[in-house]
Amino acid sequence: MKKFMNTAETMVAESVEGFVRAHEAFVVFGTERKCIRRRDLTSGKVALISGGGAGHEPMHIGFVGQGMLDAACVGHIFTSPTPSQIIAAIEEADTGAGCLLVVKNYDGDLMNFEMAIEMAGDRHSLDMVVVSDDIETSRTGEGRGRRGVAGTLIVEKILGAAAEGGMPLAELKRLGEGLNTRIRSMGVALNGVTVPQTERTTFTLGPDEMEMGVGIHGEPGHARQPFAAADTIIAHLCETITSDIAVTPGMRALLFVNGLGGTPPAELYLAYNGARRFIEERGIPIERSLVGTYVTSLDMQGLSVTLAMLTDEEIALWDAPVATAALRWP
Amino acid sequence: MKKFMNTAETMVAESVEGFVRAHEAFVVFGTERKCIRRRDLTSGKVALISGGGAGHEPMHIGFVGQGMLDAACVGHIFTSPTPSQIIAAIEEADTGAGCLLVVKNYDGDLMNFEMAIEMAGDRHSLDMVVVSDDIETSRTGEGRGRRGVAGTLIVEKILGAAAEGGMPLAELKRLGEGLNTRIRSMGVALNGVTVPQTERTTFTLGPDEMEMGVGIHGEPGHARQPFAAADTIIAHLCETITSDIAVTPGMRALLFVNGLGGTPPAELYLAYNGARRFIEERGIPIERSLVGTYVTSLDMQGLSVTLAMLTDEEIALWDAPVATAALRWP
Repeated sequence: MKKFMNTAETMVAESVEGFVRAHEAFVVFGTERKCIRRRDLTSGKVALISGGGAGHEPMHIGFVGQGMLDAACVGHIFTSPTPSQIIAAIEEADTGAGCLLVVKNYDGDLMNFEMAIEMAGDRHSLDMVVVSDDIETSRTGEGRGRRGVAGTLIVEKILGAAAEGGMPLAELKRLGEGLNTRIRSMGVALNGVTVPQTERTTFTLGPDEMEMGVGIHGEPGHARQPFAAADTIIAHLCETITSDIAVTPGMRALLFVNGLGGTPPAELYLAYNGARRFIEERGIPIERSLVGTYVTSLDMQGLSVTLAMLTDEEIALWDAPVATAALRWP
Repeated sequence: MKKFMNTAETMVAESVEGFVRAHEAFVVFGTERKCIRRRDLTSGKVALISGGGAGHEPMHIGFVGQGMLDAACVGHIFTSPTPSQIIAAIEEADTGAGCLLVVKNYDGDLMNFEMAIEMAGDRHSLDMVVVSDDIETSRTGEGRGRRGVAGTLIVEKILGAAAEGGMPLAELKRLGEGLNTRIRSMGVALNGVTVPQTERTTFTLGPDEMEMGVGIHGEPGHARQPFAAADTIIAHLCETITSDIAVTPGMRALLFVNGLGGTPPAELYLAYNGARRFIEERGIPIERSLVGTYVTSLDMQGLSVTLAMLTDEEIALWDAPVATAALRWP
């Protein structure tokens, strides 16, 4: 296991400190470093808060800033932030209009975010949107069904723009829940990852194998397959995704090819090229695109493909200005 | 060798096509796909052109757009673009004020860019800035001395802003040459890379080894060392860099930690944190920062540290708006 780190115990804290120092124009630490929040909060808007285990950077801290999240909490590697962290984020970010918490569908995250809502709900208006875009993790039949993966970025971007525009809490929740039904992701890994604390690999692949349908915590997928050409891999991912998503007239497609940590930009663009061709040949024109390393699984060599079918309003919210460490436009 | 690719022959073309399709708001292919250029050229400004071998993405194509490059040429992997490609870029990008070519200091690149200048110089005002920020490659004593690596991004950003502001060709060249004397980079690799065409690794490292001082083509560095804690690695890089750069009063420091392709954001931020602390303890306050995967060596697990000492004017040019696929602000 060769990683740029000092000790497994201090790895997350050192990395997050580096992040905050590098992006001090956007973000500051909250009290006792329990969360990262925007340097300048906007009074009277609903605060959008997210969080999750470390090891997925730049998600979520890289999405804190104008037009996206107000605060984010980072847990230990692949471990939910604590209720105390989430409550700290709520207390710092709520400027009076309440908070919407964006939570990825994992038992640990749900438990801690729900507990925070219960504990802080008497002093703050709070609600939650659960993201569950990962097709493959539904197949195992365990736990709460589909997990939240790269599609979370899309939910956070669109909700962030809507919150910036003054949308109230109940409407934001409806928007988020509607969105979540129209986003699908699937991932593939060329190697397993080593978790620093345990020094164990999540799974081990031979030189000619790949793992189809992996999650972002190195959860094994539904099938170990022989390593293949990019077009073959991409066809399998896109076929599964397009078979599972409802394509209704008037909906507009956003294609997001995400690197899982160890895959360079050139390979992601090649994969995007194949995915776009495949999906457009199925009669779904791609109107918005994102390619890059945004939702990682430590240093996993792999990628995920996400397709979102969006309304005109959601496309406009996607296009709205955003100023965070990881996403910035126009 | 597990990479997302179809064939070694088509890899670069497919990846670049994906890049152009993903960023069609910024860029288009030039005639016969010989170069990538801005969708909208600005008439009457000096055109800034760069290029180099593939395998370093997002450099340089990711830097094409408002406030940075006007066009970029992509060669085969780790191979200079041809004079014919460079001439095509000159012909498409020159709107009357001439072109400045930014070239990394490698024999192949210099030869082809010089040849293009010779061949197109009767029809266009052309000049060249050579970037040579890599400390380590000077030690080998071969070729033309220091190579150009991640510091090229800084030169292209600052010259791009100056060109956008109307700076004439001769002044841009002076600005670029001045800058180049005040930028130093050094890299480290935790593994060698496999070049797809040859299926050969550039060098092979054991599980407890690292290569100190690597170039971006997988050139071996000056020393194979036992793998160490991040702070030890970073201290070595930063010690070498700060010993080699002139720190003069009034100059302001930009610190750039760059991923070489296979290193995830969390590790880069951790390295940045250590580098910033080390350099600031040497009495050099960091005023601007960049952390991310911008100048790669295929899927190499590794990183480079770049320090630039900038004038107030250069800092203002660094801060000026930029709208490219890879760099975008304010």
